[in-house]
Amino acid sequence: MLNNRGYLSEKTIKKVHDAMESLNYQPNAVARQLYKKETKLVGLIFPTVDNPFFGQLVAELEKRLFDAGFKVLIGNSMNDPEKEETYLKELISNQVDGLIVGAQNKDISEYHTSNLPVVAIDRVMNEDIPVIASDNYMGGKLATELLINSGAKHIISTHGPINLKTPANRRVEAYADVMASYNLVPHTYIVDFSWDFEKKRQAIEAMFSKYPEMDGIFATNDMDAALVWQTATKLGYNIPDDLKIVGYDGSNITRVLLPELTTIVQPVELMAERAVTTLISRIKGDDTPLEQIIPVKVWRGESV
Amino acid sequence: MLNNRGYLSEKTIKKVHDAMESLNYQPNAVARQLYKKETKLVGLIFPTVDNPFFGQLVAELEKRLFDAGFKVLIGNSMNDPEKEETYLKELISNQVDGLIVGAQNKDISEYHTSNLPVVAIDRVMNEDIPVIASDNYMGGKLATELLINSGAKHIISTHGPINLKTPANRRVEAYADVMASYNLVPHTYIVDFSWDFEKKRQAIEAMFSKYPEMDGIFATNDMDAALVWQTATKLGYNIPDDLKIVGYDGSNITRVLLPELTTIVQPVELMAERAVTTLISRIKGDDTPLEQIIPVKVWRGESV
Repeated sequence: MLNNRGYLSEKTIKKVHDAMESLNYQPNAVARQLYKKETKLVGLIFPTVDNPFFGQLVAELEKRLFDAGFKVLIGNSMNDPEKEETYLKELISNQVDGLIVGAQNKDISEYHTSNLPVVAIDRVMNEDIPVIASDNYMGGKLATELLINSGAKHIISTHGPINLKTPANRRVEAYADVMASYNLVPHTYIVDFSWDFEKKRQAIEAMFSKYPEMDGIFATNDMDAALVWQTATKLGYNIPDDLKIVGYDGSNITRVLLPELTTIVQPVELMAERAVTTLISRIKGDDTPLEQIIPVKVWRGESV
Repeated sequence: MLNNRGYLSEKTIKKVHDAMESLNYQPNAVARQLYKKETKLVGLIFPTVDNPFFGQLVAELEKRLFDAGFKVLIGNSMNDPEKEETYLKELISNQVDGLIVGAQNKDISEYHTSNLPVVAIDRVMNEDIPVIASDNYMGGKLATELLINSGAKHIISTHGPINLKTPANRRVEAYADVMASYNLVPHTYIVDFSWDFEKKRQAIEAMFSKYPEMDGIFATNDMDAALVWQTATKLGYNIPDDLKIVGYDGSNITRVLLPELTTIVQPVELMAERAVTTLISRIKGDDTPLEQIIPVKVWRGESV
């Protein structure tokens, strides 16, 4: 079924098309699809748009795909591998022209068996699929140096499960490298992206109990950084005097709602731009670079 | 073209289907579409997912549509009537089974001429299209009373252009009614949703110049409330002593990033639930209520 993109014989297709012409019907999208084998549909699979970073990213992707003549099918996989697999099967069966994927599940075989053009954002899939990522190593380095240079010594890095193959793991690698270079001991702590806020709050409270000497946090995303800030305030910490916090993402929404948070800004517009142009090149059959790394910036708030 | 949903003769369709069967091809989505005249696709048209309220709403809609077996096409109209019209034409031509619309443009004729099942969220379209809305009048009343009861007298209500036909206008009506009942003078001030943050900031700064006696603000959404808060702080106001602020929406993201903001919480999950069940009833051809109003709640922060 996966390779059925040309499953009707040319003869049958021609017959349908001739019938349409003789009846003077305007071909609609479905008919065009059968005839030209292109749908002008692109599928986006991301964890959820109920998040400042992914909401902005999907909006930026959609805007550029619209301008390029594509409509957008979305699937919020919420990092559930079964859901991602279902989306993928359905999108392939709906004959999308290509996919942009930023969900972070383990290997899903359909990505390998389908001939569909795919571009990944911040996710390593297989050797054939181009990846667009912000400079995660530099982001992790900048964040850790900001914390150390403002006096923090007992710094914890929160992150998602490390067994996910994502370039975002380089943030943690950079954190560990910088900590080591200052003779400081790195500690990582898991706050899973797919947990709800209540479960995240509990995990963060447990982190404060586990590391009472903690005076710096590098949070892997701004929502987690905000939850850390709230927990710290509840426990009587002053930010940044008692605890310094650096987040990650720096999306539009976060910079309006919580501009006080110092954070690493991902270049969302540029990532979207590159993802769309790379996908269009793939659809045309052109060669594209297999990895594109885009620089990050620091947003200086008041949390370090 | 709009009414071409059954444009192939039954004979032609049968011929295609027989050919497929004799060749033992599994029908894919495109073929099913021609045969059954259903696509299991639903289109969502909203201003943008780069906003805490619409991001959560689209995520909640998508989750429920997925569970009901539908895939989701999105269009971020950014309140641009031309873009909305283009989306609409393309979605109709892609043969979606139905639409859920929350964009807020003026009359677009395709909604009237198409036979497509449509459900509106917080938008009045025409008499045939069911509307799901939170209790905007109650929300406006609660917000204004919160401000007055905490001592504000010179209260401004910010809102989008009032000529849009949206139930959200009832927030401003309630504000005016409550102000009048306390013998206070209502003042409304336009902050257009589609402006970028820079333009919004400028408009808000101009509002502070225009109303120097202002001691309360009812903002029509939380992003605007956050911008008001930042401008006020920059100008040396203490919140809530010098200026009291109440927002609107109370989405997941806002309550994590800016829990200090007192705001009216829209029942997003319930609105999504009702919109999806209403759309499915419409697709089946069942009768549905033309207006469903869902209660709001107050989130008590520290801004009044």
